[in-house]
Amino acid sequence: METVETIAGARARRCTDRAAGRRVALVPTMGYLHEGHLALVRRARELGDAVWVSIFVNPTQFGPNEDFERYPRDLKRDAALLEAEGVDVLFAPTVEEMYPREPVVKVSFPGLDNVLCGASRPGHFAGVGLVVAKLFNIVEPHVAVFGQKDAQQALLIRRLAADLSFPVEIEVTPTVREPDGLAMSSRNTYLSPTERAAAPVLYRALLAAAGAIAAGERDPAAVEALLRATVGAEPLAGLEYAVCVDAETLGRPERIGRPVLLALAVRFGATRLIDNLPVTPPEEG
Amino acid sequence: METVETIAGARARRCTDRAAGRRVALVPTMGYLHEGHLALVRRARELGDAVWVSIFVNPTQFGPNEDFERYPRDLKRDAALLEAEGVDVLFAPTVEEMYPREPVVKVSFPGLDNVLCGASRPGHFAGVGLVVAKLFNIVEPHVAVFGQKDAQQALLIRRLAADLSFPVEIEVTPTVREPDGLAMSSRNTYLSPTERAAAPVLYRALLAAAGAIAAGERDPAAVEALLRATVGAEPLAGLEYAVCVDAETLGRPERIGRPVLLALAVRFGATRLIDNLPVTPPEEG
Repeated sequence: METVETIAGARARRCTDRAAGRRVALVPTMGYLHEGHLALVRRARELGDAVWVSIFVNPTQFGPNEDFERYPRDLKRDAALLEAEGVDVLFAPTVEEMYPREPVVKVSFPGLDNVLCGASRPGHFAGVGLVVAKLFNIVEPHVAVFGQKDAQQALLIRRLAADLSFPVEIEVTPTVREPDGLAMSSRNTYLSPTERAAAPVLYRALLAAAGAIAAGERDPAAVEALLRATVGAEPLAGLEYAVCVDAETLGRPERIGRPVLLALAVRFGATRLIDNLPVTPPEEG
Repeated sequence: METVETIAGARARRCTDRAAGRRVALVPTMGYLHEGHLALVRRARELGDAVWVSIFVNPTQFGPNEDFERYPRDLKRDAALLEAEGVDVLFAPTVEEMYPREPVVKVSFPGLDNVLCGASRPGHFAGVGLVVAKLFNIVEPHVAVFGQKDAQQALLIRRLAADLSFPVEIEVTPTVREPDGLAMSSRNTYLSPTERAAAPVLYRALLAAAGAIAAGERDPAAVEALLRATVGAEPLAGLEYAVCVDAETLGRPERIGRPVLLALAVRFGATRLIDNLPVTPPEEG
């Protein structure tokens, strides 16, 4: 595995991959890798000849009171994990390399970036859009792999690629879970043992809501009430949002007729966890 | 010259250029070409092995009350001019090809896109940013050539390329003028003969202001007053703005110490003309 830390180094390596006719698959990450990331890497391996992973804790997607400084980092361990997965290139730039000056350009998603996670994290998705556009332009991948865990991010990146005509395919892979259902996340390490024990309530709530839809429920308000009630039964869990929205527009449907996204954000102490489940309602007879 | 009308066609041709190791130079235009555009094309010829010109009247950069519908178009004449210049590829997509659905992503330039032309054309530079990002992603040029005539646009595109790490060099070439000093523009064809006779007042005003700076004037307010007075002496000219701003930030300096941009927007009847002159103040002894 080659590790590159500069944009120029990434471009030089990309040139080599191009000359060799390799199909490049990129997995953008913020590092502190877990099995969820490794699932993305394995999917990238299936989709490309040269697998690139970027590790960059992107300051522009953190709010002033968020966890940018304390976000967990362990580049040495991450590099060993990626090496073991047969990754070809690790791109791990510094903040100064990515942002030599304050960016002026703003990439936003009006109507889609101020709901769900965007409602409590103003500017978050603009930061994501900016860094992903940069990574696409630096690595020029044929395909980029993202996780369904960050459902809103995945949706916005699909729109970014389509609306700006980036020559890249966007692949979104299913969420990887702990045996008890908790979605893997670098932020899980923030949880105390009792919080960790309580955290599977997110997935339980999603499954209960999906079960209700499978059983015929078509009222999004009723589905959301079920999500809230399930999370509310867990004393350590502080609900931020629980929604049943259209999977494309993220708007609340009148009635569940098309695919929806069930999505939750829940706080355990200072730690904010998210999870979601895309649900396609069964055809009605 | 090969004419391509689809994104897929452009990508296929780009692939051929890449395989042949050609350096691609792109000139993005809205067509109705004049000598100013052809100067950009000739510069592109110096900078690249394969010269691409795009012709696309981009609806997203026109306001609802602007001249999108009546903007002059003559693709056949344009193609003949480009053929005569030895252009390799003309990319002329339809609106439906470029925008198969309403774009969600917004590319903006906070602080730089709401001044000068942006003040009277809200959303204009977001539209420019969107279409230029698309063209960069479709054509993947090594270098893209723009005119100094659209000074604010040139500045914002430099920031777009830098902030989003587009792998493209931005080249900005001097404004081409009619013998009487009027900057070439497709919109000049809107002018009546008397308006056309009056229109060189823009350049006269810019030269007068540049002369004042050369003679030692360092007060931007005095320079702007001179611009206003010169334009104001022409009865057919309706001034929209006359500014002396920092060439990088577009902000008003306290005192002219670094390079400035003198910029004007003037209406003749329903026709809006712009012009500008970058001025570097002489070193003070």
